[in-house]
Amino acid sequence: MTPRMRADAARNRAKVLVAAELVFAAKGTSASTEEVAKEAGVGIGTVFRHFPTKEALLEAVLVGLLARFAHEAEELTRAADPGEAFFGFFRGIVAQAATKNAVSEALEEAGINAREASAEVGVPLKKALATLVERAQEAGAVRSDVGLAEVMALLSGSSHAAASASGDPQVQARALDIVFDGLRPR
Amino acid sequence: MTPRMRADAARNRAKVLVAAELVFAAKGTSASTEEVAKEAGVGIGTVFRHFPTKEALLEAVLVGLLARFAHEAEELTRAADPGEAFFGFFRGIVAQAATKNAVSEALEEAGINAREASAEVGVPLKKALATLVERAQEAGAVRSDVGLAEVMALLSGSSHAAASASGDPQVQARALDIVFDGLRPR
Repeated sequence: MTPRMRADAARNRAKVLVAAELVFAAKGTSASTEEVAKEAGVGIGTVFRHFPTKEALLEAVLVGLLARFAHEAEELTRAADPGEAFFGFFRGIVAQAATKNAVSEALEEAGINAREASAEVGVPLKKALATLVERAQEAGAVRSDVGLAEVMALLSGSSHAAASASGDPQVQARALDIVFDGLRPR
Repeated sequence: MTPRMRADAARNRAKVLVAAELVFAAKGTSASTEEVAKEAGVGIGTVFRHFPTKEALLEAVLVGLLARFAHEAEELTRAADPGEAFFGFFRGIVAQAATKNAVSEALEEAGINAREASAEVGVPLKKALATLVERAQEAGAVRSDVGLAEVMALLSGSSHAAASASGDPQVQARALDIVFDGLRPR
């Protein structure tokens, strides 16, 4: 493979991944690989060359999402306002939770442990989140008696609430504000 | 059917339901109807006479659970301490959420809309919960700017967080305390 061919292959892979995330977010994870190929503007053969099975594609979408979350968290550890950084990150994760949960669930249904599949990218994400929590606590924006495990449990719960069918966005936003108030020092 | 036979049939139906809830809670909803019959101490024919399909049994378990929640909520609307009644009910629902969510999900997977199946019993439950919230607000135990919709979103999110695999009970309890702090007036 020439460097040019390698660059083309990498670009196609990225195009397919972006398209898959869009299609799965809009139509659910039961959407077909054909729909993903169409959205990406590539042939079905290109999709299968990079992702031999639907499960491989779902797994790559999940890893890509989590890698983006980790990258965002790492960026925010350097933000000027640690409280804003923490709560902003929390809100961002919840907003993207529907896609992430749908992909995780589809993988579990296919017998693939989403937790294992994403373990590698989960480590930097957890580390950056821990830094966001600590910085927000030092700045007095988050109560000092809360640990990373509680924050992750609240993140998971808020994500599920937001992704649930009953989702009126205004209700979800107000429910999230209540969780945030609980996280602030009295 | 004589009255005696009717009473026996009703007792067997109740026995099967109690057994089904225990078995599904302990072994997941993939547990077989045979296991339910064994736990109930009745023949498999008795189970099928009352619940011709696994889905019919799951639906009856869900309706039974929600009816019990509604009954508990109604009882608590007459409690002496409205704040304790509200937060106690919230904690109780979350504690029983794993079974409820597993049954709902199994029904959804079987193509049955759990929300529709349980709509009838959902109405008194929602009404009693609204009374619990109002009484707790009047007593100053819950902030006045929170609505029933937000409480239900938080209940759903907390239930999912508690039912998730990562569930360390102490972490879940502390996460729930944070949500409760968010619900209290400042």
